[in-house]
Amino acid sequence: MEEVKLFRTWSSPFALRVVWALKLKGVEYETVYEDLANKSSSLLEYNPVHKKVPILLHNGTPICESLVILEYIDERWNTTARFLPEDPLARATARFWAKFNDDQVAPSVFRAYVSQGVEQEEAIGPALEKLDIVEKQLTGKKFFGGESFGFLDLVFGWIAKYLGIFEETGGIKLLEQDRFPQILEWKDRFSDIPVVKENWPDHEKLIAKFRLMRDYFNSTAARCSE
Amino acid sequence: MEEVKLFRTWSSPFALRVVWALKLKGVEYETVYEDLANKSSSLLEYNPVHKKVPILLHNGTPICESLVILEYIDERWNTTARFLPEDPLARATARFWAKFNDDQVAPSVFRAYVSQGVEQEEAIGPALEKLDIVEKQLTGKKFFGGESFGFLDLVFGWIAKYLGIFEETGGIKLLEQDRFPQILEWKDRFSDIPVVKENWPDHEKLIAKFRLMRDYFNSTAARCSE
Repeated sequence: MEEVKLFRTWSSPFALRVVWALKLKGVEYETVYEDLANKSSSLLEYNPVHKKVPILLHNGTPICESLVILEYIDERWNTTARFLPEDPLARATARFWAKFNDDQVAPSVFRAYVSQGVEQEEAIGPALEKLDIVEKQLTGKKFFGGESFGFLDLVFGWIAKYLGIFEETGGIKLLEQDRFPQILEWKDRFSDIPVVKENWPDHEKLIAKFRLMRDYFNSTAARCSE
Repeated sequence: MEEVKLFRTWSSPFALRVVWALKLKGVEYETVYEDLANKSSSLLEYNPVHKKVPILLHNGTPICESLVILEYIDERWNTTARFLPEDPLARATARFWAKFNDDQVAPSVFRAYVSQGVEQEEAIGPALEKLDIVEKQLTGKKFFGGESFGFLDLVFGWIAKYLGIFEETGGIKLLEQDRFPQILEWKDRFSDIPVVKENWPDHEKLIAKFRLMRDYFNSTAARCSE
């Protein structure tokens, strides 16, 4: 009898990767929602190094870092379709772009989102340049790995929802049709996948949450520059 | 006929991981030394995203990011002993700590090394705290993975040489015997492995290079605070 628990926040895109992965593999699991303003003793016990979620607890053993969790799920429940391709070169390519997303795309977009005024204008350029590189990766492909859905779609999946949230609450429209036609096409294709469609956090709740977060960043920035 | 080329600098610890990995697997390869002050057109062509080395070129296809390259080598030349363990949970653990080294240990140690004065004093604490976490990982083990040499030893291998270089050129002694007995024991064990021992860059050249680099950082910092 497998015991699988996912510790997550309700709103983080990093948790969604793991949710999609578990559901795609058909793994039964229990969700524990964490409040990062008041972290549980379990969270601190299971991820003492980073004190972050998502954490996957499998038969009592914690696995941390969402990309590490994705590969774990893919290797541990390996009887259904694999997320990563079989070919070592294709696997290396997938790992390269996953790291690029986490180290560069997501942080640069987030920086553009939470800043304002001149600082925001300066942050938008680098964010768009990272997204240009993502756009190129989709040339001639339905999904990031080619014809079928896989690892990198889970990794880049946040783009399909959160850029819209950032637009609604932060006033930055990054995905213009003429610059990012392939990301926008992929976004529709990705969003149509049942397991994706069915597991987004509630839209209105996300809007309210990110509005609050942006206000918080802005008031902190204003205080620091006074 | 396999064509394998490694683009690297002569002094970077990230390149050494790949050197050790290729030699341990018995892969014949050609080395191309890059000068980062004057990057070759090949470097820019093969790693346009990061414009960094190491790059492994295998039959004309580039693979970038040293951890990605390590996993590629392990999967592509898989008839000799594997670097990563077979068990998915042990693999996840190895990937977690590799990321921890690259995201936290190495940057915090480097920050302590290149800073000076009060700034250096403030940077040493966080670096020691990261190393404390590494120290704990070695409890009851000969190597990071347990009884035998593996993936994480390649990843943490830089510690065995570069902390000494930092001490000689930056005046910071991080690995005190009473605080880090296990890292120091591992360091001796690791340094005895022939492929490791035989492939360190020349000690005097490293000292000269890092002395120059530290001077450069300090003069830049001094100019910025004038």
